[in-house]
Amino acid sequence: MLSRNKIKLINSLSQKKGRDKLGLFVAEGVKLVTDLLPYFDCAVLIYTDKLLLNEQSTGAYELIEASRAEYKKISHQEHPQGLMGVFIKNDTGWEFESINKTISLALDDVQDPGNLGTIVRIADWFGICDVFCSKNTADIYNPKTIQASMGALARVRVHYVDLHAVLTDNRLTVPVYGTFLDGENIYQTTISNKGIIVMGNEGNGISTGLKKIIDKKLLIPNYPEGIKSSESLNVSAATAIVCAEFRRRQKYIET
Amino acid sequence: MLSRNKIKLINSLSQKKGRDKLGLFVAEGVKLVTDLLPYFDCAVLIYTDKLLLNEQSTGAYELIEASRAEYKKISHQEHPQGLMGVFIKNDTGWEFESINKTISLALDDVQDPGNLGTIVRIADWFGICDVFCSKNTADIYNPKTIQASMGALARVRVHYVDLHAVLTDNRLTVPVYGTFLDGENIYQTTISNKGIIVMGNEGNGISTGLKKIIDKKLLIPNYPEGIKSSESLNVSAATAIVCAEFRRRQKYIET
Repeated sequence: MLSRNKIKLINSLSQKKGRDKLGLFVAEGVKLVTDLLPYFDCAVLIYTDKLLLNEQSTGAYELIEASRAEYKKISHQEHPQGLMGVFIKNDTGWEFESINKTISLALDDVQDPGNLGTIVRIADWFGICDVFCSKNTADIYNPKTIQASMGALARVRVHYVDLHAVLTDNRLTVPVYGTFLDGENIYQTTISNKGIIVMGNEGNGISTGLKKIIDKKLLIPNYPEGIKSSESLNVSAATAIVCAEFRRRQKYIET
Repeated sequence: MLSRNKIKLINSLSQKKGRDKLGLFVAEGVKLVTDLLPYFDCAVLIYTDKLLLNEQSTGAYELIEASRAEYKKISHQEHPQGLMGVFIKNDTGWEFESINKTISLALDDVQDPGNLGTIVRIADWFGICDVFCSKNTADIYNPKTIQASMGALARVRVHYVDLHAVLTDNRLTVPVYGTFLDGENIYQTTISNKGIIVMGNEGNGISTGLKKIIDKKLLIPNYPEGIKSSESLNVSAATAIVCAEFRRRQKYIET
């Protein structure tokens, strides 16, 4: 049985304030919960049917069987499967040494929780292990973000930092890239297989402060060039194209 | 003043049933409404402040000034600007002759309204003028889709069709592509600058019936290949990468 207090506690995790206070976040659905169980400590696992549990479930500190009606009170989904994990947040550290060896992403105030989740999923697909977020970027532990990231958090580490400070630190030895409408055509310029790629806010792009420290501005050319079309791509669509292109050049082009 | 009847009518447009019955849809925000005004007949334009109107607004059949409180009752936005257009749907036709000359998209049961809007915006960026949707794909006139498409509907035509019938019609002379986890690496196979690219449902990919008629299965390779990562990319992220690659090959690679 799910007590009223537990329902209240779990629902407080819908808000960043609640998540920050308790250091917890929720994830729903059999696949997602199963993906996260080996990587995050699970404080509570709530299920409506024992069949939804598996071996890993025994690792949870507390197991609660809830009725369908109780589960509905905590679910964010329209058609819930009936499995929710309350996980303990795990903010891992990072070091310039490893960042300097590979490609990472930096998000400058990406606001939409769904976009953030999709971007983390893209990072995962392209083997990008570290995503730096400005303090005003959406919260990675937002339920919408967790759902959109599809378990990518098991492999991608997300760090909330002062982006300007990190990108101007002299321990950072790799180039900083960013996408701009007045950048160099990404297909016609050299790009490295190491670096940090900055993606900007949905409405305003990369902020003025960060613009100045971008080593190379990149453009995703539209088609046909010059014809009026959408003013820009959605930030997650742009991230997908840029990450794919960095990996294509690294892997399939002889240099 | 916005009458109770008008509020009821406008709110009925949140549902597909209401939109189908009345042949109308809504769009909100100064930029979006301004983008759509030259391309769609505007039945009603609702504004909270005359300053939000412009020259084009005079083309609307009816102009209604609403109080902030009235506007809130019809708005889908958290922080509404206070401008909404009620537009007349415009289902344009299409012909094999023009489809056979270019690249088009086909969506096989894409369910999420936001994904659909993002995909139409991607199509717009890459100069793809026709998007075919299976009958079970989300409704292009869903308010969330309209907002996510960012005015791309002014240039991209969306057609709801029996996808299987269109793709097997012998008047179609261009190849049919689709993305699959067991496809050929898109970077290492030949692709044409004419064709239809099929993108599948968020959970199930391309349906069994359509799989059989795909001429070439394409894979977006992950990195490093073979290492366990997300099982797939979000459908709009995959669409972005595939469309970008078709246009890159068409434009920047000598054949």
